[in-house]
Amino acid sequence: MTVEVEIWTDINCPFCYLGKARFEEALEGFPHRDGVRVVHKSFELDPTLPHGHSDAVVPHIAEKYGISEAQAAANERGIGAQAEAMGLEYRTEGRDFGSSFDMHRLLHWALELGKQETLLDALYAANFAEDAPLFGDTERLVQVAVNAGFDEASVRAVLADSTAYADAVRADEAEAARLGARGVPFFVLDRKYGVSGAQPAEVFAQALEQAWSDHAPELEVIGGADACGPDGCALPARD
Amino acid sequence: MTVEVEIWTDINCPFCYLGKARFEEALEGFPHRDGVRVVHKSFELDPTLPHGHSDAVVPHIAEKYGISEAQAAANERGIGAQAEAMGLEYRTEGRDFGSSFDMHRLLHWALELGKQETLLDALYAANFAEDAPLFGDTERLVQVAVNAGFDEASVRAVLADSTAYADAVRADEAEAARLGARGVPFFVLDRKYGVSGAQPAEVFAQALEQAWSDHAPELEVIGGADACGPDGCALPARD
Repeated sequence: MTVEVEIWTDINCPFCYLGKARFEEALEGFPHRDGVRVVHKSFELDPTLPHGHSDAVVPHIAEKYGISEAQAAANERGIGAQAEAMGLEYRTEGRDFGSSFDMHRLLHWALELGKQETLLDALYAANFAEDAPLFGDTERLVQVAVNAGFDEASVRAVLADSTAYADAVRADEAEAARLGARGVPFFVLDRKYGVSGAQPAEVFAQALEQAWSDHAPELEVIGGADACGPDGCALPARD
Repeated sequence: MTVEVEIWTDINCPFCYLGKARFEEALEGFPHRDGVRVVHKSFELDPTLPHGHSDAVVPHIAEKYGISEAQAAANERGIGAQAEAMGLEYRTEGRDFGSSFDMHRLLHWALELGKQETLLDALYAANFAEDAPLFGDTERLVQVAVNAGFDEASVRAVLADSTAYADAVRADEAEAARLGARGVPFFVLDRKYGVSGAQPAEVFAQALEQAWSDHAPELEVIGGADACGPDGCALPARD
């Protein structure tokens, strides 16, 4: 009996970083947590960006929203305050925004190794908890993966072959569109319940409870056919 | 996306033998059959029988239902006719009824090897398609498993240790009771739908369709929290 949780996410997305921690807080307190399986899925906030694209975060936000850089920086500090309140490190300066396609390809590779969570946490930490560009720096990306315990030659091989896991990334994104996800984080439980955004842990806890209880309802039983029980088998009609 | 099907069954149960074939017919025609996972679970029709117990089937039925042996034999022929109509061999004489506990233990062992289906088919064939006792003949049981491709020494080791997989069998039986199964075959789809008895293939097909469609409904989405999308991230309130 397993609740399958799919989490669409982007490394560029601060609320994905926060939402993951809130979901994990809910999972930690969920009595049936051993029966929950989590898979992370790809969602690029901007799939049109070319490989290696890197914008400094604050100017990027200022331009995107048509606000001043001072306002953009203040917004970043607002997110940082939320992160810190949850015990997450968050740097508001020196970071970049860019193409996450290679990271999503690596995450699919890590999934096959059973180490997707490890890599995702490392990527989030590298992007949000350090004041250095990540999206425009492939060497740094390699080091982040290697420091997280991945084999350097294998990481480089995945990165060097731009077709590797590319279809898997695109498939995740198509799936997100079909499910109606227009932003991330987007959590889907058993393909039945969706939770959009970095909701409070209580919301995730309720969704987990709901999905779990759906697994153990009164069965709707179709009966009436030949069967055997402790008192014997139903006898076929005799002539 | 997987539909999990659990099938409680007993080797003693002719309708389990028939029901398995009907379920497989439905599965064969199910467009998403690669997304269906089947596990067979233990259910002893008579868990009180001692190890090695063996009754000839026809006298056993006659006594159980308080009918003549001629009537019991006619009933067996009736089941045989149903089986033959499905292309299954069925012997009405020479077979026995007995303790299936060891077989269920072996089926749990085979499940771990990824070969439960192979063993179950072999046990059904040995019981129903041949006119020789099976439940009272451990050597025959060993040969059935070996002929199905299992390692003889390993089979004997499982049989020799009466505690091996015994808890797993008991757990299956307790689970069946919790789910309200009073006879077998008992099919459970996603712990949501139950199908009792050797229903026509169409009933299984409908149950598979229903369970599958439950996996891909309109999501019930809880929204309204901070998220990032193509147009940027929700901005935290500014003061």
